[in-house]
Amino acid sequence: MTATLPTEVTATHAIVQPALRDAVAGLEPAMRKVVSYHLGWTDENGESADGGGGKALRPALALLAAQAVRSAPEAALPGAVAVELVHNFSLLHDDVMDGDLERRHRPTVWRLFGTPAAILAGDALLTLAVDTLERAADPVATRCLTAAVQRLINGQSADVGFEHRVEVGLAECLEMADGKTASLMRCSAELGALLGKADPVQTELLAEFGRCLGMAFQLVDDLLGIWGSQEITGKPVLADLRVRKKSVPVVAALTSGTGEGDALREFYRQSHPPTEEELRTMADLIERSGALAWTRERAQDYVVEARSCLDRIAAPSPIHAALSDLTRFIVERDR
Amino acid sequence: MTATLPTEVTATHAIVQPALRDAVAGLEPAMRKVVSYHLGWTDENGESADGGGGKALRPALALLAAQAVRSAPEAALPGAVAVELVHNFSLLHDDVMDGDLERRHRPTVWRLFGTPAAILAGDALLTLAVDTLERAADPVATRCLTAAVQRLINGQSADVGFEHRVEVGLAECLEMADGKTASLMRCSAELGALLGKADPVQTELLAEFGRCLGMAFQLVDDLLGIWGSQEITGKPVLADLRVRKKSVPVVAALTSGTGEGDALREFYRQSHPPTEEELRTMADLIERSGALAWTRERAQDYVVEARSCLDRIAAPSPIHAALSDLTRFIVERDR
Repeated sequence: MTATLPTEVTATHAIVQPALRDAVAGLEPAMRKVVSYHLGWTDENGESADGGGGKALRPALALLAAQAVRSAPEAALPGAVAVELVHNFSLLHDDVMDGDLERRHRPTVWRLFGTPAAILAGDALLTLAVDTLERAADPVATRCLTAAVQRLINGQSADVGFEHRVEVGLAECLEMADGKTASLMRCSAELGALLGKADPVQTELLAEFGRCLGMAFQLVDDLLGIWGSQEITGKPVLADLRVRKKSVPVVAALTSGTGEGDALREFYRQSHPPTEEELRTMADLIERSGALAWTRERAQDYVVEARSCLDRIAAPSPIHAALSDLTRFIVERDR
Repeated sequence: MTATLPTEVTATHAIVQPALRDAVAGLEPAMRKVVSYHLGWTDENGESADGGGGKALRPALALLAAQAVRSAPEAALPGAVAVELVHNFSLLHDDVMDGDLERRHRPTVWRLFGTPAAILAGDALLTLAVDTLERAADPVATRCLTAAVQRLINGQSADVGFEHRVEVGLAECLEMADGKTASLMRCSAELGALLGKADPVQTELLAEFGRCLGMAFQLVDDLLGIWGSQEITGKPVLADLRVRKKSVPVVAALTSGTGEGDALREFYRQSHPPTEEELRTMADLIERSGALAWTRERAQDYVVEARSCLDRIAAPSPIHAALSDLTRFIVERDR
């Protein structure tokens, strides 16, 4: 069973894509070539391609948030483009930092064009994001974005830092996920609300909806990073365990106080790369420690919290139903 | 003989430094540690140090530009802090891309804290720069900065691209220098003028002054990259030739149509790293091709152009004299 995105979400693509292409068209040709490849619009030679791109959840969130407060989706367009650009800035830099070879089933930018090209393309997208929002002439919106970017950078910084640490607490691990993923999701919904002229209470509720959605998204991502199927996610089986990432289910197991958690710790202390059999044992230990179930329940808790934010916004509308469906997609997806 | 900075320039440090420290204090502690080291405020353990920092020319330019249009230097402070943050963002990323081991006589951030830390610290400073300027609540200023950052990124991108190309034209090489260095110097002066409430004509003249100063600065930098003293610049002798950089004097020699230029081209086509003797021969060929003298003359031309911008601004003042002295420092400096 593959979860599908609500049609209201996929419908936003038709509005976002042309605006995103317009923004990228403002980049200088050499940079545009690298960025267009990264976004799946062209192949490595600059020929038109359909690399699929990503799920474009963040711009959808921005547009839907504006609609949820009864504005036209177009009102949120600068915010939608900005968050998608920031998301891709962070992917470009993350792939360099993590040494990832593939993204969306294609070679990563640093691998194809070199590390400098990937760093510079990321820098260019971050700058373009600010510039796009700035043209909307709402200083509150720009500061909302820069604050989210700082939280995103801190989250990524913590994620990298955890790799070199033996003990990581569950609270700081969840905080890292909040920074790395939830902050930009929160910002996406908040920008949509702000640009849709929502009042402060509605804005805060939509922002919190975005944050909870982001937390659920990251927790499910962590589960897919261990138990996801390679054909579907495009990542190797047991990918996160292979590089001994301290994702939420891993830290939940390590701090579970169970025998399985202690056994897992021994694997995390080994200096040699884990064998295929060891990887399967590690995944098994995480499951038997109760951390798989715990992480899944937390994701569900965030969905409940997200929906409760929605319920408190205003009168029900088709958009509310779509946002509610989106939360279900987030936890049921397999990629 | 060592050229010294005009006292009006060094006097700006007392205003800029506390504001820069205030801005950096807003970063999260782990990030602040890396950034404070990079800025020379602390050693690698976070203990107070005097690593000297840089010349802080860009913030000085912003403050002096505001003063040149008879505003208080403090008016330009958000702009001054922003351009210094952007400058350091670019240094952090450049050191990763170029694999440079030392900066200001100390190990580079990527070497000490790792590549991810250097990439993230750069990202954080770029974001902090936008945020700092945004607080000044002048959207024109923010867009002036983001436009300069895009030009800076394109210049750095061209610089990296030139390494993989056999033939580079002199015009595109000068354009690269314009992007890599002059764009942020231009932006520094322009921001100072904008925040100092200069009229559009004065603003454009100060911006053009900054650009010409930046071009002269980069050309002298290129000369120091070949003929500078290691003790003073902190870079190895003949550094740029060692890595076969296509800086302006090199491209001027290669495109000179002289026998020396052709001989230099052969060295640039070699696959093995040049020996010490070959490096000295290469430097000699550049000098004999006339490219050393040509580059020095172009730097001087830019100084003349910069001063002519100054002359057209307003009634002479001590600040004009200081800005004029600054152009002399730029061409006479040995570091």
